[in-house]
Amino acid sequence: MINNNLITKYRSEINNQLLKVYSNGPNSLVQPINYVLSGKGKRLRPILTLFTSESLGGSIPNSISAALAVEILHNFTLVHDDIMDEDSLRHGKPTVHKKWDIGTAILSGDAMLSLALRMIQKSPKYKNKLMQSFINGLQAVCEGQALDKEFEAENKVSQADYIKMIDLKTGFLIGLSAELGAISAGATKNEIMCVRDYGRLIGRAFQIQDDLLEIFSDSNNMGKSLESDLILGKKTYLMIQAKEINPSEIAKALDLSKYNYSLGLKKVRKIMTDLGIRQKAEQEIKFIIDEANTLITKHNICIDKFSFFSNLINNRGN
Amino acid sequence: MINNNLITKYRSEINNQLLKVYSNGPNSLVQPINYVLSGKGKRLRPILTLFTSESLGGSIPNSISAALAVEILHNFTLVHDDIMDEDSLRHGKPTVHKKWDIGTAILSGDAMLSLALRMIQKSPKYKNKLMQSFINGLQAVCEGQALDKEFEAENKVSQADYIKMIDLKTGFLIGLSAELGAISAGATKNEIMCVRDYGRLIGRAFQIQDDLLEIFSDSNNMGKSLESDLILGKKTYLMIQAKEINPSEIAKALDLSKYNYSLGLKKVRKIMTDLGIRQKAEQEIKFIIDEANTLITKHNICIDKFSFFSNLINNRGN
Repeated sequence: MINNNLITKYRSEINNQLLKVYSNGPNSLVQPINYVLSGKGKRLRPILTLFTSESLGGSIPNSISAALAVEILHNFTLVHDDIMDEDSLRHGKPTVHKKWDIGTAILSGDAMLSLALRMIQKSPKYKNKLMQSFINGLQAVCEGQALDKEFEAENKVSQADYIKMIDLKTGFLIGLSAELGAISAGATKNEIMCVRDYGRLIGRAFQIQDDLLEIFSDSNNMGKSLESDLILGKKTYLMIQAKEINPSEIAKALDLSKYNYSLGLKKVRKIMTDLGIRQKAEQEIKFIIDEANTLITKHNICIDKFSFFSNLINNRGN
Repeated sequence: MINNNLITKYRSEINNQLLKVYSNGPNSLVQPINYVLSGKGKRLRPILTLFTSESLGGSIPNSISAALAVEILHNFTLVHDDIMDEDSLRHGKPTVHKKWDIGTAILSGDAMLSLALRMIQKSPKYKNKLMQSFINGLQAVCEGQALDKEFEAENKVSQADYIKMIDLKTGFLIGLSAELGAISAGATKNEIMCVRDYGRLIGRAFQIQDDLLEIFSDSNNMGKSLESDLILGKKTYLMIQAKEINPSEIAKALDLSKYNYSLGLKKVRKIMTDLGIRQKAEQEIKFIIDEANTLITKHNICIDKFSFFSNLINNRGN
């Protein structure tokens, strides 16, 4: 029976292992890296790796290294992205470049990447295949972040370009989580591609939901600073549509948010609701998750853990 | 016959290949990455990889990917280190974070790392061994840079701690260059360790020479900005000794350099010469290079290319 107890068990196993990843090294790396890896992340990516492995006949011992690798990779991107996005909070704690400095944050991220690669090398089987996918994932996530930054400076971004960007930035890494689980379980090429695509779709839904929560949840629920994104005028799934449908209204609301954040946010929320953008985003998330689940069923892979995972994502904001 | 023409030939082959590494991707990555990879570096590390491979019966086609990987890794460290050290020039050109911005420099470095890893994966043989050494090298170089930053904040650093730091920061990467060449040539474990240790010693000599040139060559010869290092009060091989022998004199000279750089530098030079520190550093460099050459001879590895390489390093400042 897949339930929240199982998630709690997997999560605490992952958390325990993460604390053992790096204890011998210069203090200026050991401290920030352990600070990051003991953060209150949900560990969704490594849980997906373990779920996928088990769904395809693999075992936890065979896939735990890959699971840890993907979580460390994810945290590496957070540390570096937080510098670029000038975010000061992450999971309710100061970001590394705020608590220490930019140099420490850059270097901690770099060292975390070496630790993630080391984890891939520790996998008992299929090292080379795992590494190849891991490197592809690393490149995708860098390119996604690059496009995200490019979009900040652009006035108009199409929905299609936006989807391409979030697929690279978020989707590919969640796809990688499933892919590594499948590879470490010795799955067939078709199965590997199927769960990878499942993960990519889930990642796309996850990001659109992030965009939704960014506007409709409060900062405490999200555990990171929202103001920066709004003030930086980040293109999000919802913002792009609002700019297409009623550019002047949303521009006014964003301007307002620079001077009076809460009033500006309130106005942004009203526009998103009145224009039906909120509802459309909610429908889109459900649609993509359904598509992802269908993919698994089609390939005759046991759906239990995947549909539980899909629901986890879907209920994230509640 | 090993001569400068051979170096020119290898260097231009490496330069040609580096330009093909990354052309498809977001502009904000393609531009800075190609800007960095077309810089006027001496390509000493990849040349060492090719030399080592050939000295151990390997071929250029079997080792060129590893050679490129190590050069891209080296350039990745330069891009990130330049942010941390606030350096504005590299090989006579503005550094990435100066020409673009810090975010672009962080992300370009990250993406370069994925490209370096991809190069290792492209090696026709011994991928797993190459990858393991590459990851060890990546971690060492991060830890070396971390120690270097820690030392900036410390008042007193011992010579032994300094050597440990430069071994990690510089030595291990040059050691890696030789190691990857040996692995790709299918060398024995003993041969691999021998050339790795040769490279580490050469790297140590290289760094001490860097410390020497930092004080005794002018900015144009070095092609990077020297002022920052002096003003930041970086611990170097020479500075550590000066602080041990005559702390008040060197402190005065460093203080002076903050207000009047050229006068301060002149004074630093005089102190280093009068205290015999300059001569001691020059002797130490020669001694370490001899030790490195002896290592190769002892293991019955053909010395020709190695001793040519050692001379390249030794004559760098001239």
